[in-house]
Amino acid sequence: MRLVALAGGTGAAKLLRGLDALLDRQSLTVVGNTGDDARIWGLHVSPDLDTICYALGGLLDEERGWGLRDESFRTLGAMVRFGEPTWFNLGDRDLATHLHRTRLLAEGHSLSEVTAKLAADLGVRHAVLPMSDQAVRTRVLGPDGWLGFQEYFVREKTQVEVRAVEYAGAHEARPAPGLLEAIGAADAVLLCPSNPVTSVGPILSVPGIVEALQATPAPVVAISPIVGGRAVSGPAGRLLAARGLPVSALGVAQSYAPWLDVLVLDEEDVALCPSIEAAGIRPLTARTLMIGRVEEIRLARKILESLG
Amino acid sequence: MRLVALAGGTGAAKLLRGLDALLDRQSLTVVGNTGDDARIWGLHVSPDLDTICYALGGLLDEERGWGLRDESFRTLGAMVRFGEPTWFNLGDRDLATHLHRTRLLAEGHSLSEVTAKLAADLGVRHAVLPMSDQAVRTRVLGPDGWLGFQEYFVREKTQVEVRAVEYAGAHEARPAPGLLEAIGAADAVLLCPSNPVTSVGPILSVPGIVEALQATPAPVVAISPIVGGRAVSGPAGRLLAARGLPVSALGVAQSYAPWLDVLVLDEEDVALCPSIEAAGIRPLTARTLMIGRVEEIRLARKILESLG
Repeated sequence: MRLVALAGGTGAAKLLRGLDALLDRQSLTVVGNTGDDARIWGLHVSPDLDTICYALGGLLDEERGWGLRDESFRTLGAMVRFGEPTWFNLGDRDLATHLHRTRLLAEGHSLSEVTAKLAADLGVRHAVLPMSDQAVRTRVLGPDGWLGFQEYFVREKTQVEVRAVEYAGAHEARPAPGLLEAIGAADAVLLCPSNPVTSVGPILSVPGIVEALQATPAPVVAISPIVGGRAVSGPAGRLLAARGLPVSALGVAQSYAPWLDVLVLDEEDVALCPSIEAAGIRPLTARTLMIGRVEEIRLARKILESLG
Repeated sequence: MRLVALAGGTGAAKLLRGLDALLDRQSLTVVGNTGDDARIWGLHVSPDLDTICYALGGLLDEERGWGLRDESFRTLGAMVRFGEPTWFNLGDRDLATHLHRTRLLAEGHSLSEVTAKLAADLGVRHAVLPMSDQAVRTRVLGPDGWLGFQEYFVREKTQVEVRAVEYAGAHEARPAPGLLEAIGAADAVLLCPSNPVTSVGPILSVPGIVEALQATPAPVVAISPIVGGRAVSGPAGRLLAARGLPVSALGVAQSYAPWLDVLVLDEEDVALCPSIEAAGIRPLTARTLMIGRVEEIRLARKILESLG
């Protein structure tokens, strides 16, 4: 079975780890969101790609949900005296990833090429692609103007009223090499339990990707990151609301209609099934909170079984 | 009293610390060797400028003679899996300096401007200038071809026969802004106890600097880094020999003749005084080994007293 998974960070990482435990090597192509990439201390940081690679390489700090296990922040501490921003928590071991990526990009390698090397070096058994080799940047309009996504998410800790979200540069971006081909060849496409607006949304903003999802005869399956009217983590609830969508699995379904085939939603939200069916989407209830490895694998198995 | 000091790394750092203890703030202009600057992991590393700034900021690891006190090497450890070179020991706290420098240079600031900011941020009370804003790179010809200075010094640990030394780029380089003016206004110019070939030599290779030393009526005073026929540290002995010069304070004097006025040499080498006088240079004997802060200050005081 060949799968493509569109992925954000923390929530996606859990499901991907579950899938990795069940799938043969190289049977999964992960397409990572790069809308929240940022330049920090002159380095190219790709938070979602790193979370995915660290998770699939068995290196993720699972308590925090980001960064490497056994991390320290000594460079960060030494940055204070230079007046460099320290709100973005770059760890010492994590820095090696960003230094290596930045050096390779500066030498002319594409983000796809660099991501493939980083993933292999980090021990990932599957293909990891950025959504695009071109820069697409998620920006959030707050009361005082536009913020880069990391400024909104990390620096302001999402405590800013969101009036609009845009994906700057999307019009000129192209899907990463091999991305559309992977969707075309996939037996199923999964939309990980990630924020529909700022994690999966940027991926879908790259011209050609939605068209490929519409065209594929394979089922497109989303896993709702909203349980019982609240996001499992992060600002997905407020961002759905800012888009005028219900803060529920139904809002997730509406984000992806009309090309979504299946929505995996939490058992707690079983009452939403008729509305989801009415939208032409097949609901599949499961326990979607993944607390610990056993639950990650259980959800992954349920999804794989539903695909036949 | 206004002093200019041409400086390499470890040996210079000791004398400069001694001078700093005796001088008013901003009475010293240190001109640092950038011939051994290198690009490591995509970062611009200036080992001698950093040793000087760390020493004058009270942050130097005095046991090693380079880098910061209380250092760790966690990023370095994480670089192994990416196949990045790890022979250059970049510490985690030290990395902040190189990241900040590299970012400012990439934004278009000159090395002089960046060095001034780093020195101030690190608590240095004096002016620190690179010898040039242009790249001059010391290269060493070994049996298997040319090596960058850090490859020779750190990676090969100087265990390579040296057939030639060159300062690539020197012809096109210009002295850093304010450098010639500082020499012109100085009451004395000191050549720190640094390697004449690969620490002071690159500084002298920048067109205009030797001419300024020849032109100044102020005394030019060198401190010999060679004691009793051996370098106090590093490969200065072998490099002098490779240049056909005696491995002694006399060889140091000959490196700087005919514009050198005073040579400070170790008491142990008092027998060389007649030969040095015969070369038209005034010898001044002192205990030049600086083991601990008291000896650093004692040598600095003796030099300052000799200047009147």
